[in-house]
Amino acid sequence: MVRGMTQMKDYPTSARGPAGHEVRDQIVLAATEHFSRYGYEKTAVSDLAKAIGYSKAYIYKFFESKQAIGEMICANCLHEIEKEVSQAVNGADTPPEKLRRLFKSGVEASLRLFFQDRKLYEIAASAATERWQSVVTYENRMQSLLREILQEGRLSGDFERKTPLDETTLSVYLVLRPYLNPLLLQYSFDYTEAAPGHLSSLVLRSLSP
Amino acid sequence: MVRGMTQMKDYPTSARGPAGHEVRDQIVLAATEHFSRYGYEKTAVSDLAKAIGYSKAYIYKFFESKQAIGEMICANCLHEIEKEVSQAVNGADTPPEKLRRLFKSGVEASLRLFFQDRKLYEIAASAATERWQSVVTYENRMQSLLREILQEGRLSGDFERKTPLDETTLSVYLVLRPYLNPLLLQYSFDYTEAAPGHLSSLVLRSLSP
Repeated sequence: MVRGMTQMKDYPTSARGPAGHEVRDQIVLAATEHFSRYGYEKTAVSDLAKAIGYSKAYIYKFFESKQAIGEMICANCLHEIEKEVSQAVNGADTPPEKLRRLFKSGVEASLRLFFQDRKLYEIAASAATERWQSVVTYENRMQSLLREILQEGRLSGDFERKTPLDETTLSVYLVLRPYLNPLLLQYSFDYTEAAPGHLSSLVLRSLSP
Repeated sequence: MVRGMTQMKDYPTSARGPAGHEVRDQIVLAATEHFSRYGYEKTAVSDLAKAIGYSKAYIYKFFESKQAIGEMICANCLHEIEKEVSQAVNGADTPPEKLRRLFKSGVEASLRLFFQDRKLYEIAASAATERWQSVVTYENRMQSLLREILQEGRLSGDFERKTPLDETTLSVYLVLRPYLNPLLLQYSFDYTEAAPGHLSSLVLRSLSP
């Protein structure tokens, strides 16, 4: 069985102050909105404070820096992509179909979250370049999801069992990576329609027993 | 038989003046050196003229713009990568080994030409972003080389023949693309050691009859 919903607590961030404080959530929500519109790199915490109507000192009660806010926004975003992909995968019955859905929903959710709805590209790009903890966590979790699908397919007889599981997981992940990583995805827009189908077919042929 | 050496004339550029004029070659050589050291974007034709000891007017006899010089440098660079890859491929006996060498030499030559020896990354990145003609030509030629290997393997019985050749060529090209395109390659340094082996193994398994 592929693992179900992920927990947001799996994504470590460096927020401070009392856990579960709703003001923190309000700051993150307002900051997401603000960064989406005015950009992350160019906005200082003081601009943000003014725009969302909290004092700078109050924001610093909950976040030690702008990056700490960015990290939480990024963690939310990656968590949302992972949730969407898990749901798509869990809605399929067979390992091959799960793999197809991993490719398709992974590309779609990344495109939408990073580039369309939320315009979080700038934060996601900083996170990917500097390898923030949430990015490392996200990549590990996507690889785990992939490994579970491969493992399930080996047990069901849908996939070959000759190759080492870890190596095959990495190989398939490398095929998918250009469409999950925002830095690469920005240069792959011409292929986002065709790639998920073509690449999952190629991978499935490579996995045939 | 996989096609042999490529001709430089296949790479269209917008140089002007008498064909085969050796001054043009001298300008290109000096400009390559200069751009490698001082950067392409920031250098004006007048800086270049001063640095390489020709008058600006004289340079304009041979090139209509800085981009025209950049285009020729880029075409030379891509032509060199293609030549190296063709040589590596032609040195192998069987289609599977040719495919492995395509992956390995493609990644190595791209890394070396774009990032190490010549530091031509900046020109290559402009070319890839703006899709200069030499880039389009290069991508088509690499896809043709790949198609020829696949075709040869189908005839020899090493590769399956069920899938449409064009579709399979595109799929395999998409697997390789992140390591040939300089814009994507810059974010894939962590994988350039492992990727050629892992990915060509995966592709070869997908091609088994």
